[in-house]
Amino acid sequence: MRSQFPGMWNLDGSPWGYLDTAATAQKPQAVIDATVRAMGVDYATVHRGVYARSAEMTLGFEAARRRVAAFVGATEDEVVFTRGATEAINLVANTWGVENLKAGDRILLSTLEHHSNIVPWQLLRERTGVEIDVCPLTQDGQIDLDAAAAMLTPAHKLVAFAHVSNVLGSVLDIGRAAELAHGVGAKLLIDGCQAAPRIKLNMHALGCDFYVFSAHKLYGPTGIGALWARAEILESMPPWHGGGAMIEKVTFEQTTYASAPQRFEAGTPMIIETIGLAAAIDWLDQVGLDVAQEHERVLAAKLRDELSRRNDVTLFGPADSIGIVSFALDGVHPHDLGTILDEEGVAIRAGHHCAQPLMEHLGVSATARASFGLYNDESDIEALLKGIERTRRIFGQ
Amino acid sequence: MRSQFPGMWNLDGSPWGYLDTAATAQKPQAVIDATVRAMGVDYATVHRGVYARSAEMTLGFEAARRRVAAFVGATEDEVVFTRGATEAINLVANTWGVENLKAGDRILLSTLEHHSNIVPWQLLRERTGVEIDVCPLTQDGQIDLDAAAAMLTPAHKLVAFAHVSNVLGSVLDIGRAAELAHGVGAKLLIDGCQAAPRIKLNMHALGCDFYVFSAHKLYGPTGIGALWARAEILESMPPWHGGGAMIEKVTFEQTTYASAPQRFEAGTPMIIETIGLAAAIDWLDQVGLDVAQEHERVLAAKLRDELSRRNDVTLFGPADSIGIVSFALDGVHPHDLGTILDEEGVAIRAGHHCAQPLMEHLGVSATARASFGLYNDESDIEALLKGIERTRRIFGQ
Repeated sequence: MRSQFPGMWNLDGSPWGYLDTAATAQKPQAVIDATVRAMGVDYATVHRGVYARSAEMTLGFEAARRRVAAFVGATEDEVVFTRGATEAINLVANTWGVENLKAGDRILLSTLEHHSNIVPWQLLRERTGVEIDVCPLTQDGQIDLDAAAAMLTPAHKLVAFAHVSNVLGSVLDIGRAAELAHGVGAKLLIDGCQAAPRIKLNMHALGCDFYVFSAHKLYGPTGIGALWARAEILESMPPWHGGGAMIEKVTFEQTTYASAPQRFEAGTPMIIETIGLAAAIDWLDQVGLDVAQEHERVLAAKLRDELSRRNDVTLFGPADSIGIVSFALDGVHPHDLGTILDEEGVAIRAGHHCAQPLMEHLGVSATARASFGLYNDESDIEALLKGIERTRRIFGQ
Repeated sequence: MRSQFPGMWNLDGSPWGYLDTAATAQKPQAVIDATVRAMGVDYATVHRGVYARSAEMTLGFEAARRRVAAFVGATEDEVVFTRGATEAINLVANTWGVENLKAGDRILLSTLEHHSNIVPWQLLRERTGVEIDVCPLTQDGQIDLDAAAAMLTPAHKLVAFAHVSNVLGSVLDIGRAAELAHGVGAKLLIDGCQAAPRIKLNMHALGCDFYVFSAHKLYGPTGIGALWARAEILESMPPWHGGGAMIEKVTFEQTTYASAPQRFEAGTPMIIETIGLAAAIDWLDQVGLDVAQEHERVLAAKLRDELSRRNDVTLFGPADSIGIVSFALDGVHPHDLGTILDEEGVAIRAGHHCAQPLMEHLGVSATARASFGLYNDESDIEALLKGIERTRRIFGQ
């Protein structure tokens, strides 16, 4: 598996102990090859050319949309291409949010949300006067849905939760969250960045109303992601970015807009990136999401087990965390640990992981985080444990 | 030159008569190679990693910002990476525009603007009640700055013009436009999409306040472009997209934001694309903007000269148009011409070119447009003329 990823090797030909897939995933050669073709012999603009290569690229672009839709169990008119999950959430806030939320309405977030699922709602709060509530976590780092049930009122118009915590690896029960949200007439938005590479998705079975994810965490390119929204919601949303391709007819007096999803894709789209995203999904589907999930579950469990044998490590998150393990080594700042591990050829993330409110909740300024991808195996865990041991020796007991 | 562009060849190894560079430019091998490295052996996230490869990618990312800044004669803190020019204009409208424009204020656009420089201001009009005025064109298709001088009033807070028309190839005198705008206290925004690949730029010499362009028209990747704004204006602008990387400190009660330009770059950036854009600028600077401009001036003049010898062709735009030639063949719809030319291996654009108000002004629903890049030569003009001749035979006199 590792051999398919040029990024998983050091320049001297040795394997790299990359354990930062929750930040961004390495790309398989199949995605790189698709990108090279799209930038070269296949390159042309989409939607506007009368020549064959542009027509073919347009077919490829729209096939990529169908590919994404099929990947999440949706239909193509429900999928909007965005720069990534962050832009997708901002899009919902600035269209559906501005149109439907007013002063006094409430949004329920949770303590473990990534900044990308906090700040857009705060900007909406400044613009509309909507209020934000924060659902607490259970002892082991799950969003506490019992607490959510007690907090939700008819004033709540939106619940926005992460499917999988990017720090703790805890997994949301979306079905129950949807029941709770819909029970008070609220919509449910799910930040699926950490789930899309690890959990087989089916939008209509899940029961949420909006779902967002980024390609670069899904073994695909940077600069692209997707928003899924129920067709009737998406069709009702006003435009956000104005420009070419999202219009029907432009005059200076009055412009009319295209149907969704085109209405939300102003300007020349991320042509090369959509082709790369489709290639990443093809690759991941060939491997199988069930294989991915089990592979990373086993690695995360193994690492948690090994770390729990140490008396100088604090583990965060639930025992059944998925693909992501956050921890602290007593007396060693995560950054120092990360730096020493780097010298050992192991790359972990150390920091607040764009989740400062969760850090505050955990009572730390930062955690060390190891996260797994399909290219990792037990040798990466061994290298990490060896690096922790060396750090221990350097810092003393 | 053509040999450096894999996209300029057909699959059978014959050269492709690509004359649609105003829509999007083909990519030199140097840009493709830089992309492959960035997606593979160099790949890591930016700004957040404690390991060496992430630090190196961060250096590359910020070097790309400096590269873009130097390319337009600016400093790096004045350059925001966006998805493209369209997003850059929307960013200005939704930040500077929302903060500074109110009902009764006026914006001056021109008849020849691309939809990307019309629709964002119409959306701002809906939100704020600002009014839009439209500067007419001279007989030969330049923005009529004498008319602008007569139209501008102290109520005008913004003038937004294209540097080079994407349909007519006409070039704006930015110096005079800046004088006129600043004379009434308005800011000047320039849509530089068609200028950046053809004209050596120096922001501070030009005198405008905002300048936007897209990488994909500059021999670079899709999914990336840039906004330049005067440092003091950019620093004063409120955030737009919320998320990671654009914050200083996040709590649910109160979030504080990073300085510009980071404040406008929420989420994981277009990492791979920034590296590709820097490679495209390296490549273009090595060729020389003076060489590019002269090369395309000569080709455009040659094509205009050849077409003007025909008594069945209408030429649009000024005699000194730059790189772009719009025309009509009597009695033949541009789409039919484009289709027949495609059979001859020549790719032109036929349509409204995302400039419907200009089409209305010209009294046509569409034009045929040939546009040149550095990879074109006289053989492409010969192929185009041969294709026009064949179209004439098919359609009769």
